[in-house]
Amino acid sequence: MYSKKLKAPEHQVAGHSAKEGKLGPLVDGEGRFFKPFQRDFRGKNEAKFYEFFSSNKNAPNHIHGYFPAYHGTQVVEASNGSGKLPHIVLEDVVTGYVKPSIMDIKIGSRTWYPDISEEYFNKCLGKDRGTTSVSLGFRISGFKIFDHQESSYWMPDKNVVHGYNVDEARLALRKFVSSNSLSHSIPDCAFASKIYGGSNGILAQLLELKAWFETQTLYHLYSSSVLMFYENESVLKKGGHDARAQVKLIDFAHFLDGNGVIDHNFLGGLCSFIKLIQDILESSDNSDETNTFRFKNGH
Amino acid sequence: MYSKKLKAPEHQVAGHSAKEGKLGPLVDGEGRFFKPFQRDFRGKNEAKFYEFFSSNKNAPNHIHGYFPAYHGTQVVEASNGSGKLPHIVLEDVVTGYVKPSIMDIKIGSRTWYPDISEEYFNKCLGKDRGTTSVSLGFRISGFKIFDHQESSYWMPDKNVVHGYNVDEARLALRKFVSSNSLSHSIPDCAFASKIYGGSNGILAQLLELKAWFETQTLYHLYSSSVLMFYENESVLKKGGHDARAQVKLIDFAHFLDGNGVIDHNFLGGLCSFIKLIQDILESSDNSDETNTFRFKNGH
Repeated sequence: MYSKKLKAPEHQVAGHSAKEGKLGPLVDGEGRFFKPFQRDFRGKNEAKFYEFFSSNKNAPNHIHGYFPAYHGTQVVEASNGSGKLPHIVLEDVVTGYVKPSIMDIKIGSRTWYPDISEEYFNKCLGKDRGTTSVSLGFRISGFKIFDHQESSYWMPDKNVVHGYNVDEARLALRKFVSSNSLSHSIPDCAFASKIYGGSNGILAQLLELKAWFETQTLYHLYSSSVLMFYENESVLKKGGHDARAQVKLIDFAHFLDGNGVIDHNFLGGLCSFIKLIQDILESSDNSDETNTFRFKNGH
Repeated sequence: MYSKKLKAPEHQVAGHSAKEGKLGPLVDGEGRFFKPFQRDFRGKNEAKFYEFFSSNKNAPNHIHGYFPAYHGTQVVEASNGSGKLPHIVLEDVVTGYVKPSIMDIKIGSRTWYPDISEEYFNKCLGKDRGTTSVSLGFRISGFKIFDHQESSYWMPDKNVVHGYNVDEARLALRKFVSSNSLSHSIPDCAFASKIYGGSNGILAQLLELKAWFETQTLYHLYSSSVLMFYENESVLKKGGHDARAQVKLIDFAHFLDGNGVIDHNFLGGLCSFIKLIQDILESSDNSDETNTFRFKNGH
C-alpha cells in the first residue's frame, strides 16, 4: 500500500543509502521512515529493541521522546528492486524540517561486545582505533550543515568524516552551529547559544539522557548514534526562536540486555561528547558580542 | 637512612609484593610508602604523574585529598636485595588503621591506550576481555576483608579474584561491608549504610570524584585503581562511628595527558562501580532492620 509513495530520504547523513538502486531506508513523506531489515541477525535484533523499548514502562516518558516512535514492521518493496522485504517502520524524525542541519554521532569508544565472531570483533576494533572512537569515546558518522553565508549545504564524504582526528571532530561540532561553515575562516559559532544552549537546547537534552544512562541497566547500546538536528529556516527568518533543536537516539541493531549493569561504554562516550559541546558554549559565551555583531552585519 | 626500618606493607592487596625476597613496595611504619620504580618507562612515568599532580593548582583541594600525598623520590635498598633503587615516596594511606578491610578496584573497561607496543596491547586486551573490565567497566584486583564473626581476615588469591564474573564481583562488594564475609550464607551487608552510605561514606567520595572526572581533561588514567578501605576496630568497639571509610586513587604508571578530552574510559567505569555500590545501599536500606537485628544478636 505504501510502495508507490516511498522514496529515499532527503536528509540522511550516515548509513546505507537507498539512492542509486541500493538497499537503504525509505520515507513516505508523511512522517514515516522505513528501515529495511539488515541482513543476518541485525534486522531482527533492531526490531526486537523497538518492540521491547516502545512497550517499556520502566523508561520514563521524557526518555521515550529521545527515540523515534515505533510503528511496527511492514513488508514493502525494497529500494534496490529486489522485491518485497520486511522494514522497521519508524517516525521520520526530520519531517517538517525544511532546511535541517543534521549530524550523526556514533557513541562509545568500543563498538564490539562479548560473544561476537572474531571477524566482526577485529573489524570493529580496527574502526574504533582508526577513528576518534578510542580517543574521544565517539566518532562522527556523517553530517550536513546549511551554510548561511553561501545559502547551501555542506556535506563532506563519509570517508573524510571517518578520517577525522580529535581536532577535526571538535571543529565540525563548531561548524555545525556556525553561519560560515563552508568558509575556511574560523567558525563563528553564531548559533551555539541558540542550538546547543538554552533550556531546550541540545546540551539540556544530552544531560537528560546522561542522567538516564547513569542508572538504566536495561540496555547496552553498541554502534548506536546520537542524531542531532535543527531547522535553519527559522534561524534565518526569526532569529532562531523556533529552531527545534533535537536529539534522537538511533540504530539498535547491536543492542544487548544490560543484565543489571549500566552501559558504561555509551555513558563514557556521551559524557565526552557533552564536554565538547560545553566547551563550545563556554568559548562562544565569551565571544557572544563579537559573534552577534558579525552575524548581524554579515547578513 | 630509611633502609633499616623499611618492611613489606602489612595491608597490601594487589600488585607486586615485597615478600619472599621479591621486588615490591616498602613502608617505614611512620606513614611513608616506598614504591620502587617499575622497569622501563613506567616508574618514571608514575613519578612524573605525582610531580605534575602534586603541584597542579587546577585540581581542587578536595580532589588532591583523593590521591596519596607525594614526598618525592628517594634511593633506598630494594626489597629483593638487588641493591639501591629509586623509589617513589608516598603517604602510606592505611597508617593508623588497625584492622582495615581493603579493596583495590582497577577502573576502566580498557587498560590499553594509543601508541603502545602490539605486545602490550594484546596483553591488556586479553586481560580486559578475560576479566570483568569489559563487562563491568572495572575489575577487582584484590582485597582483604575482616570477618567479624570469625575475627579473622579473608583474602582470596589474586588469581581467584581476577577470575570473578559480574555476579562474583557484585558479591565481593557486598561481602566487603558484611559481618559474615567468610560464611557461605548470604552476606548481611551489616555495615553498608555506615561504610558505603552517609555524607562522608564511600559513595559520597566516589560521587565527588565522578563530578571531577566529568570535566577534568588534564589526565587520562589507564590501569589506575580506586583503593577503598575502612577501620573494623571502630566498627567493633563503637558501632562504626569512626570507621574512617576512605577512597584513594593509586597506580599511575600508565597515565597520559588528557589533551582537552575527558577520561571517558575511567569515568564510564567509575559510574558503573558507583551504580553497584548504590544498588547495595538500596537493597540494604530495605532490609536495614533485619540486618541490625542480625548483627546485634550475632555478637
